[in-house]
Amino acid sequence: MAESKVSPTPLLKDELDIVIPTIRNLDFLEMWRPFFQPYHLIIVQDGDPSKVIKVPAGFDYELYNRNDINRILGPKASCISFKDSACRCFGYMVSKKKYVYTIDDDCFVAKDPSGKEINALEQHIKNLLSPSTPFFYNTLYDPYREGADFVRGYPFSLREGVPTAVSHGLWLNIPDYDAPTQLVKPRERNERYVDAVLTIPKGTLFPMCGMNLAFNRELIGPAMYFGLMGDGQPIGRYDDMWAGWCTKVICDHLGLGVKTGLPYIWHSKASNPFVNLKKEYKGIFWQEELIPFFQSATLPKECTTVQKCYIELSKQVKAKLGKVDDYFNKLADAMVTWIEAWDELNGGKSAELANGAKN
Amino acid sequence: MAESKVSPTPLLKDELDIVIPTIRNLDFLEMWRPFFQPYHLIIVQDGDPSKVIKVPAGFDYELYNRNDINRILGPKASCISFKDSACRCFGYMVSKKKYVYTIDDDCFVAKDPSGKEINALEQHIKNLLSPSTPFFYNTLYDPYREGADFVRGYPFSLREGVPTAVSHGLWLNIPDYDAPTQLVKPRERNERYVDAVLTIPKGTLFPMCGMNLAFNRELIGPAMYFGLMGDGQPIGRYDDMWAGWCTKVICDHLGLGVKTGLPYIWHSKASNPFVNLKKEYKGIFWQEELIPFFQSATLPKECTTVQKCYIELSKQVKAKLGKVDDYFNKLADAMVTWIEAWDELNGGKSAELANGAKN
Repeated sequence: MAESKVSPTPLLKDELDIVIPTIRNLDFLEMWRPFFQPYHLIIVQDGDPSKVIKVPAGFDYELYNRNDINRILGPKASCISFKDSACRCFGYMVSKKKYVYTIDDDCFVAKDPSGKEINALEQHIKNLLSPSTPFFYNTLYDPYREGADFVRGYPFSLREGVPTAVSHGLWLNIPDYDAPTQLVKPRERNERYVDAVLTIPKGTLFPMCGMNLAFNRELIGPAMYFGLMGDGQPIGRYDDMWAGWCTKVICDHLGLGVKTGLPYIWHSKASNPFVNLKKEYKGIFWQEELIPFFQSATLPKECTTVQKCYIELSKQVKAKLGKVDDYFNKLADAMVTWIEAWDELNGGKSAELANGAKN
Repeated sequence: MAESKVSPTPLLKDELDIVIPTIRNLDFLEMWRPFFQPYHLIIVQDGDPSKVIKVPAGFDYELYNRNDINRILGPKASCISFKDSACRCFGYMVSKKKYVYTIDDDCFVAKDPSGKEINALEQHIKNLLSPSTPFFYNTLYDPYREGADFVRGYPFSLREGVPTAVSHGLWLNIPDYDAPTQLVKPRERNERYVDAVLTIPKGTLFPMCGMNLAFNRELIGPAMYFGLMGDGQPIGRYDDMWAGWCTKVICDHLGLGVKTGLPYIWHSKASNPFVNLKKEYKGIFWQEELIPFFQSATLPKECTTVQKCYIELSKQVKAKLGKVDDYFNKLADAMVTWIEAWDELNGGKSAELANGAKN
């Protein structure tokens, strides 16, 4: 249903921002020009704010460095990470659009098996504009795609699906591996193009990568907090994971869908596995506590907005994960600060979402 | 890990039976000869037992018609459907092998996108011999496949996976649609080759199709009952669905995995949608009660074998679905008869499966 013909106007041109965290000149945008130029960019400059980031001519953008973040958020800027791509979530907060696409600056345009360049953003938009099916698995994958449908045995009452909140895209070339796997398989490349989009079923967690990710800001924006990482923090490279676990629990509660699969981008370079190991090692064992926590987390019926869900989750983080490490007490506080800052910048609007019948 | 090099001996040659339900001569086997000939076939002849079914020369097979089923099972033959491909489950019962592959006689060898003929059985065996990952979703699909692994954020404690009980394959050309969808989209063909195998997450149900299906008989055989369908029954075309829902609930309870995706077969002809509608229409509305039933079904810890699980499930069917229609009381009784017959033919062995830590 979201299959587009060749359209003269880019889809959602005035309803979507592209958020890019970076510490360098954005030459990578040249390759994306045919697909991104019609959209507005929000660039979140990490690291030294005195450095000048060059953006190729012709792009419409706003750029925020650390000084801007501190000025705009005041003391609440403490919830935005520094020296870590987790800072990107500041861009989600200042966006005024309904949809956000975020991409890393080492990601390039991939090609499909026919050799055609993939318009990743267009596929994300298709994913977001068509429903999700979290309550029952469809064996022929996305039932809303042209040439596909629900198979025999799929309950008819579930075929309308639910609104899609998140579209998680994948990566050809360098796969998104953790440091131990990078160390063990330094030469592994992802060369398999899997031509599918799937809904992650309700009750199932997944590792959400922030490299190539789109979401409906109105439906789920306030849950897309990338946590406290990097400078002054004991952990890195779990920013997107944290956001993904929180987001999935809240989507499941509110009856919203999360998709993964197409589109692919071409991930150009592997980060340093030794540096990554240092960032990750606490996460690797904390995670063994985090997953059972998120798997068993339940939200009360009163939590009818993303904000309410997120504040409730922050309380549970403090109560149950605070004993794992004091870091989680700080993180729980930052989760609250994040929501306060979000509401401040977004007019305190917190759209009431009717709890779906399927919760 | 189950990636095979070109091997001189077919995988599991002496440990796998191919079960084929049919009412016609098995000419379709000619196309499968290079892949199936080394294996033993169990042919379950449906309909008129006086008809002679021709099997191409060179295949090693045993064939059972209705007279054989009645002779072997006596009064318990009542649990085996007649005039419906549900009769195939008799073949599962009389097999003496560890693995079963079942395929319909209108399924032919498909080609992958490179034009190579797909050895469906070999892929099923790979699926069954490598673990499943039902507790957390891996975004790069099967992590055990060559060139793939677990992505960043996948808990290390879950990377060993669990034993795989079921491998559900898909279909190119004619998709497995219900009668209403067949009527609405008579010309739709599945032309999309999705190069992936996935574990269906724990707690998620799926529509299991019996057309191209393999399973580990030792792990899950007694749950693969295809129910009461066809002659004298108010319903058809829900045989495999019923088996799939029961199987998934039991696999989830026992900590076993269910995979879907590759391999594809080429499904040659659509069945008559008007005939199908007649068979299905009760199922289409009963299903709206069945899915919530199976989604909420829980099995007590004492159920440590598939048989015990299945008997318990039959009690729940009677208690909760008997009021939907008296048919489910009959079906619940048949489920018990099936287990009695299974144990009779299989020496009453019911391997105790330790309840996995992840239950």
